[in-house]
This record gives sequence, structure tokens and C-alpha cells, in this order.
Amino acid sequence: MSDTYSRSGASPPGSKIVEPTYEGDFVLDGPLELECGRALACPTLHYAVYGRLNAARNNAVLVCHALSGSALVGSWWPEIFAPGAVLSLEHDFVICINVLGSCYGSTGPGSVNPDTGEIYGPDFPLVSVRDNVKAQAKLLDSLGIRRLRLVLGGSIGGMQALDWTILHPERVERALIIGVTPLSAMGLALNHLQRQAIQHDLEWASGRYLPQRPPRRGLSLARQIAMISYKSAPLFDERFGRNPDRSGEDPYSANGAASGLTGGRFDIAGYLDHQGKRFIDRFDANAYLAILRAMDTWDPLRGYASPVEAFGRIRARLSFIGISSDWLFPAEEVRRFAESIRQAGALADYREMTSDHGHDAFLAEQVELVRLLQ
Amino acid sequence: MSDTYSRSGASPPGSKIVEPTYEGDFVLDGPLELECGRALACPTLHYAVYGRLNAARNNAVLVCHALSGSALVGSWWPEIFAPGAVLSLEHDFVICINVLGSCYGSTGPGSVNPDTGEIYGPDFPLVSVRDNVKAQAKLLDSLGIRRLRLVLGGSIGGMQALDWTILHPERVERALIIGVTPLSAMGLALNHLQRQAIQHDLEWASGRYLPQRPPRRGLSLARQIAMISYKSAPLFDERFGRNPDRSGEDPYSANGAASGLTGGRFDIAGYLDHQGKRFIDRFDANAYLAILRAMDTWDPLRGYASPVEAFGRIRARLSFIGISSDWLFPAEEVRRFAESIRQAGALADYREMTSDHGHDAFLAEQVELVRLLQ
Repeated sequence: MSDTYSRSGASPPGSKIVEPTYEGDFVLDGPLELECGRALACPTLHYAVYGRLNAARNNAVLVCHALSGSALVGSWWPEIFAPGAVLSLEHDFVICINVLGSCYGSTGPGSVNPDTGEIYGPDFPLVSVRDNVKAQAKLLDSLGIRRLRLVLGGSIGGMQALDWTILHPERVERALIIGVTPLSAMGLALNHLQRQAIQHDLEWASGRYLPQRPPRRGLSLARQIAMISYKSAPLFDERFGRNPDRSGEDPYSANGAASGLTGGRFDIAGYLDHQGKRFIDRFDANAYLAILRAMDTWDPLRGYASPVEAFGRIRARLSFIGISSDWLFPAEEVRRFAESIRQAGALADYREMTSDHGHDAFLAEQVELVRLLQ
Repeated sequence: MSDTYSRSGASPPGSKIVEPTYEGDFVLDGPLELECGRALACPTLHYAVYGRLNAARNNAVLVCHALSGSALVGSWWPEIFAPGAVLSLEHDFVICINVLGSCYGSTGPGSVNPDTGEIYGPDFPLVSVRDNVKAQAKLLDSLGIRRLRLVLGGSIGGMQALDWTILHPERVERALIIGVTPLSAMGLALNHLQRQAIQHDLEWASGRYLPQRPPRRGLSLARQIAMISYKSAPLFDERFGRNPDRSGEDPYSANGAASGLTGGRFDIAGYLDHQGKRFIDRFDANAYLAILRAMDTWDPLRGYASPVEAFGRIRARLSFIGISSDWLFPAEEVRRFAESIRQAGALADYREMTSDHGHDAFLAEQVELVRLLQ
């Protein structure tokens, strides 16, 4: 079944995965004090590197991944490494670090809390985007990297990239921030819906679900809610329209799959179900909640007296990219956000990617993204 | 608590409810044969009338309600009756009929199936918009009304209004169709999400839930998903922004209400929860599913060889209204839909209501709607 939806995969068809030079763990040698007042005792950061650090140590690039991404940037963003594209395996030393809270190797709700000997589960604290940047900086210290030629990312990856330029102004030369602003009320609403979808699951058990019985249906619905916000209405119309589900269900049937109240599915419903199903095989519900909360609470001005005090710290040259059909982080809002940062005294330009793929375009249309960046 | 959100009520503040002249039931004297191939045995239509039918019987107006509406149009659309507005209690005889499948008096999933002596529940068949129009025509026959001066409605009410002009061209003089087209793929997606929200509820029981234990959390989530599609992102930003919940929760707290994974709510989340809670006290989950399916399957061209064959039947003068900030039924799509009907040979004009209230504007901004219609 996955083939029928291959166009929706994160990697463009025909893209060849780029293998990392090294993939491993970095364990902090002490507690990570968190913004929320709690701490993570010696958390692990799982990371991957591509290419080699040069002798001058001035060719490092940090890629920050989005919600459901991993440290393996060469797997989910391969076109960024294409010849003449954004990154070069020959010239750059690319690092990508799995965010804290995730289920792809870094410490998250599925990890054992050394203080209790049990897995964190719902007791995992709020680890903010800033907390992540703080931990990432320690990893870079351990690699002997003082300065980044470039930090880049889309969505929550872009949140990390911007926080890098504010928190460590002396360490970043350039930043590329794609499809992101602080979440709008609509964005917060969409996350609130997803949270409930997970929490309403029969197996949820207040987050203390058994590993072999996770809240699969709830996580699937959360992913489906997210998918409608990642894509655009025109794309859905073009791909699915009002067609019946391709497996042959009849939306006009008297009874359909379940009852007269539900009936056969339309194609868009089959697509969403498929996306949900794919996701539950690769992601954990508590990790999902942890990262949603990091997104929700991201506000680069929080704790600063003014935009000038926050953004005026920036020494890097920033480029913002808006996506024309993105309704989760509308292009116009990204443009205004970039403008507000420029007005606060930082160097920031704005470019727009024309795509009907919505927010997802930075992953779904990598070739087009690379073209815009060249 | 309801006062804090009074701006979101369907009736504008200060609007005075208009009382019906009569409210009662009409029972069909035989089975209603349905498009899906099944039948409803002698279904009941609950309806309300306002004003008096004149001697010439040429002052009848049919108002068709939206998903969660009722026959009491004077309660949910009072400004339509304001002096000099669209309808006049002095000159018009206004009829509003609760749709089949609803829980406000007409036969629906909560009714007893006379064939079995048990309530329909999930066995309630697909009752399409056309099926409703067919039943409504029988009610009008019983009242001695051959011809309608006007039929009007928004959302699924507009679907009914247009079907009236196609199925009974000789019986309608004018139609006013607000904020509607056949559901787009995005619209079908949103309904698919809502359906799952209900079906995932602990109490769902495949639709055979006990009346005293309905799937409340699921219906609340379904309503919240619907609410984000009824409103607009700019409205949410203006009203709620990134403010913490007005009851005093802290979204940045270490633990918040439940755990480190959820935290305190933002104001938009508190608003959505409140909307969900209000809704579960007034609506039934199976009825909700029944009407979603009628919306999903509405396609006025279904069964006709061409747009000309379907829309060419129309003898009424049609006016379509799009709402500038509606993303469930985008104004541009409504304009194109009206244009396609005009090209098929019917008289159809298009007007646009400027509002940041989204799809909901026809209920939330009635004074502005009336101004546009004058």
C-alpha cells in the first residue's frame, strides 16, 4: 500500500540517501538545568555527522530537524547534499542532533530517569527549544567546534536555528530559517487537538501505557490532524479531489465499512489513515507530546525586555524562507517575522518558496528548495 | 464561564430571539425511499413556522439550517427577522425544518426504528441532502404550499437550498446560498478527523453507547476540530494570540495540569475546550455522524450527465455569498461554483461578505450579513 502514496514520502522519488560519517551518542557530564526549573540528569544526545572537520575547524554546519525527524539528515533531507546544493560532503562538516524529548536516540520520555530507575513517561519535563540549544552547544564544545559556518532548519528546526543566533551570537556566521514563526493561535489550536487525540486513546493510561500497548489510534489521529496542517487544500484537491478511496470503498454506499453513519471512505480519508498508520510504526506518543510542547512554548522574546534586546544580540546573517501555500506558518507571517528581526537591528532577508505542498514543502520539494537557495 | 466567551455565541449579543408562530411534527404517511437504496418508515419532520401564510399562498420562505442547527431559526438567526432585514414576520410565512439525522426532533439515529422497535443508533441509514429535500417537499405539500418565494441557508443549509432549485425547479422563485460548495478534499479530511475523534472515545461502543454514557470526549474533540475550520486564523490571533488560558493556567509551567508533557493551557485551548463542552450538552454523537455523512456525499451533479443537465433545470434566481475568511468553503471556490452554475444556464450572482469570522460569519456576524443582502 505504501507505494500508492509514494509521492507523500519525505524524500523525493529517486533521491539517494546520504550515509553519515559517524553516528553516535554524547552524554552530558552533568545535569542539564532546564528553563522550567527542573533538570535532566546527564542526558544523552544522539547525533550524526557527515563529511570531515577541517584543520581550521571552520567548516561546521548544524542542521536542526523538525518534529518527527532524526539525526540522520542524510536520510530525510538528501537533496541538500546534492552536488552544487546547500551542503557539500567534500567541504562541510555537517552535524545533526536528535532533539531531547524525541524517540530517536536522545533522552526522552521513553528513557530511564536515573533518579528513579524508571522510564520518565509523562514525568518527562518540559525541555524547551532553548534547553535543546544549550545541550547542543555542549556537544559542539566536545567536538572542538567553536563556530558554525551555518545553522539551518525548518519548522521546529528553524526555531532552534534562530535560538542559536540569539543565545550564542559569537558562534554562528549564517542561519537559514525555513517556514517558522512563534506558533500562532491557530497553530496552538492544532497542537491542542493533537494532544487530546492521544490522551483520548483507550490505551493512553495517563501516559503510563505499556510499550507493547501504546495509544496507536490516538497517535494516528494526531498525525492525521498534523498532516492536514502540513499540506495545502489545493494539493489535496489535485491529488484526491472527491474521489472514492482507491482501494475500492464506496462513500455513497448504504452501509459501508462500519455502519450507515460512516460508510465507505473518500480517497483523502484513505490517505490520512495510511499516514497515521505509517507514523505509529515509527514514533512514540509521549515523545510526540514532549516535542509539541517545545513548539508551543517557543517564543524567542520570552525573558527579554524588547525585540531589540533579543534580536539585537544576533551577529549572524539570517535568511528566512516562507512557503507560499503554508497555512500553519503562513509565508506572510514569516516575512513579517523576518522584518521585525531586521527592525531590531539584525541582518535578515526573506525569500519565498512557491509550492502547493504547504508547510511540508521544505521536505517534500527539496529540489525546488535547493533551487531557491542557490 | 460561558460569559467569558459570549462573543462566540451564534446569536449576536443583544439579539432578541424571535418566537415561532407554531412548532410541531409532520409524520410522513409512508416510507421515505432513500438514495442509498434503503428507506425510513414514516419518518417525522420537526418544524417551526413564523408569520402567517397569506390567502394567495405566495409568501412562503424556507430556511434550511446548518449542521448543528434546529428548526428554531428565530433563535439562531434572529437578525434575519430584524425590521428591513431579509425576512418579515408581517409579510412572510417562514418555515424551518429540522434535518433528518439530527437530534432536534426529526427522525434520527436516536429515534426508534418502527421495523425493529429499537433505536437506530449506528444502523441509521445514509439520509442524503436530496432525501431531506424530498421529505421537506412532502411537508410543504401538507401545508398547501406549492411555491417558495425564497429558500435560503448557509453551509449544509445552502446545500439543501440549491438542491431545492434543481429537484423542484417549478417550486422556487429565489435561492440564497451562503458559504458552500461540494466539500473539497480538505473539507472531507476535516470530517474524517471528526469521525475518528468520536469513534475513538472510550464510550463509543460502535455507536451503541448508552444514552447516559455518550462519547462525550470524542464529540467534544470533533466539535473542536470543526471550530478551527469554522473560524479563521486572524480571528484566533486577535482574540487569543499566545495568551495563557484566562483561568490562570501557565503554559510554561514545569508540570502544569497533568504532566510535564502537557502543561498549562494557552487561551485558545481553553476556548476550544469550552466550545467542546458546550456542544456535548446539546448534541448527540450519532446525529453528528449522520449529518457529516450527508455533507460529505453532497454532490449536486451526481446522477446527471453534465452540469447543464443538472443546473440547466434551475428556474430560480440564485444568489451565492462567499465569506472572505472562510477556509472550509473558500470564497473563491464559492465564486467559481456560482460561475459554473451560471455557465450551465441558470441565473446566479455572487456577492462576498468581508469578515474575519471564517465560515461561521453567517451566524456570528448576522448584522453584517443582513447589510450585504439589502
